[in-house]
Amino acid sequence: MAIRTALTEAFGLEYPIVSAPMGWVSGGRLAAAVSNAGGLGLVAGAYGDPVWLQPQLELVQAEAKRPWGVGLITWAAPPASLELALHYRPAADFLSFGDPGKYAQLIKAVGCTLICQVQEVESARQAVAAGADIVVAQGSEAGGHAGVRATLPLVPAVVDAVAPVPVLAAGGIADGRGLAAALMLGAQGALLGTRFYAAAESLGHEQARGRLVAASAGDTVRSHVFDIVRDFYPWPEPYVARALHNRFVDRWHGREPELQGALTEETPAYWRARDEGDVDVAAVFAGECVDLIRAVEPAAELVRQIGGEAEALLRGGPELLA
Amino acid sequence: MAIRTALTEAFGLEYPIVSAPMGWVSGGRLAAAVSNAGGLGLVAGAYGDPVWLQPQLELVQAEAKRPWGVGLITWAAPPASLELALHYRPAADFLSFGDPGKYAQLIKAVGCTLICQVQEVESARQAVAAGADIVVAQGSEAGGHAGVRATLPLVPAVVDAVAPVPVLAAGGIADGRGLAAALMLGAQGALLGTRFYAAAESLGHEQARGRLVAASAGDTVRSHVFDIVRDFYPWPEPYVARALHNRFVDRWHGREPELQGALTEETPAYWRARDEGDVDVAAVFAGECVDLIRAVEPAAELVRQIGGEAEALLRGGPELLA
Repeated sequence: MAIRTALTEAFGLEYPIVSAPMGWVSGGRLAAAVSNAGGLGLVAGAYGDPVWLQPQLELVQAEAKRPWGVGLITWAAPPASLELALHYRPAADFLSFGDPGKYAQLIKAVGCTLICQVQEVESARQAVAAGADIVVAQGSEAGGHAGVRATLPLVPAVVDAVAPVPVLAAGGIADGRGLAAALMLGAQGALLGTRFYAAAESLGHEQARGRLVAASAGDTVRSHVFDIVRDFYPWPEPYVARALHNRFVDRWHGREPELQGALTEETPAYWRARDEGDVDVAAVFAGECVDLIRAVEPAAELVRQIGGEAEALLRGGPELLA
Repeated sequence: MAIRTALTEAFGLEYPIVSAPMGWVSGGRLAAAVSNAGGLGLVAGAYGDPVWLQPQLELVQAEAKRPWGVGLITWAAPPASLELALHYRPAADFLSFGDPGKYAQLIKAVGCTLICQVQEVESARQAVAAGADIVVAQGSEAGGHAGVRATLPLVPAVVDAVAPVPVLAAGGIADGRGLAAALMLGAQGALLGTRFYAAAESLGHEQARGRLVAASAGDTVRSHVFDIVRDFYPWPEPYVARALHNRFVDRWHGREPELQGALTEETPAYWRARDEGDVDVAAVFAGECVDLIRAVEPAAELVRQIGGEAEALLRGGPELLA
């Protein structure tokens, strides 16, 4: 058995589950594991660093037996990183955070499916006008960068705005209940980040994954401090990143100007902490769905669990009728 | 046909739909209309003003042919207002915003069902410990006062935390898609505020309801300014109210200390504006689901539409299986 939606039809998936392209977390191994299990795995092109991206593209190409994709941060990734990604013939290119118009034609010209993630209804319309084949409506409960609208009301509003273009739900989903709910809202599938951050194949540090398993939603905070300390990432408004509370964010959140003045020391210290897995300093981006994450598990197992749970809920729908 | 859940069983409803007890909006006529259509209508006890509440209780008692309830703001409503409400023998008493322990025994002693609305997982556990028969998990996309967690990830986390106590979803739901999604998340029903604010029987001013129909989610803002200007409502942390942008909030949001210093003029002016339906000044509390509200409709029609749409989606669940 499997779930059939416009998304699964487009890529020949078993389940309408997409793993989010999380910078330094979603490498080729994770994407391949998700795709091979019947979901759609996305490699994180993130800010477009080719030194990180190229080996991951090699990996996914070597390991994936089914379609996979790559994601880029629209405002940040340079054209060369898109060209690098497209060279490996992904089935889908995912753009988020910025005007997808700048890359839409390049992506579609090579027959790659364009997936655009948006955070507002109006941006969904703009993405479709730019050529989006699939729109992801991302809520503010997501981990990492997001906008200000919540997933539950955003998804049906985007579905109405861009019909018949397929919409996926992102933000706040970590299990089959969330996936089934997304489908009831009119979405054709769901994109999950935090849940796959805590997968066995994720490149997230072991310490970070341990924190995700232990954390609850109240441990998350939306803050600019990690963007400020990672000096060369000048995120535009209105995007703010959600991460777990740690010593660093507790020290600097609300004192952003002081942090800005302390970057000579703080920025190198931050990158050292990141490399060492010191999650008291380094960001552990996490969505509010951490409440639902209780173990690190292999990605294939997650796809089967989440897909199977959603399947059972959909099958049971008529049992709720009197 | 109808939908059957623990909520509909508890009150003999056709649909697991509850209308929120919105201060000065959810009068006896609205509650009776929702209940008579097969949902559960709640009269707004709000801050507990008996002069407003008593005639509304008379109205609901006269018009409702099926179970109805009453809601109170826990931290604000005095014991006398609870006694007044219970005197009219509501089937349910709804408490939100504060420790329900102070009133739980009084409510349960008269055989009334205790519904507690919470905004965090931990408060859900506390509500159940205090005696809650039903827990409402309210997300921050809701209109009016709410916490900071989003509905989609909050609901399943609360379901897991308080099982087998029934949970309802609130915040961001305005149609059958949202109701069906809530049921997939493990909720036994949904509580809708903004959608019923824009019902024909709502006591919201005609100007306010017109704004709701015209507005989109981006027109909402979470702010303390309306609590400040309505001087005698000292809302405790962490509750913040979501309302539509208007001239008043645009003038004072971010300038709260100045507003505090201008209350001698601003407070009487605010109440005048409220009484006159001047929604450039008076608050129009609204959730992010305003995107989905396109007309003022009779409450009975809304119950049938929302219930019927959810019913069709549940019946169609198995069609998504391949």
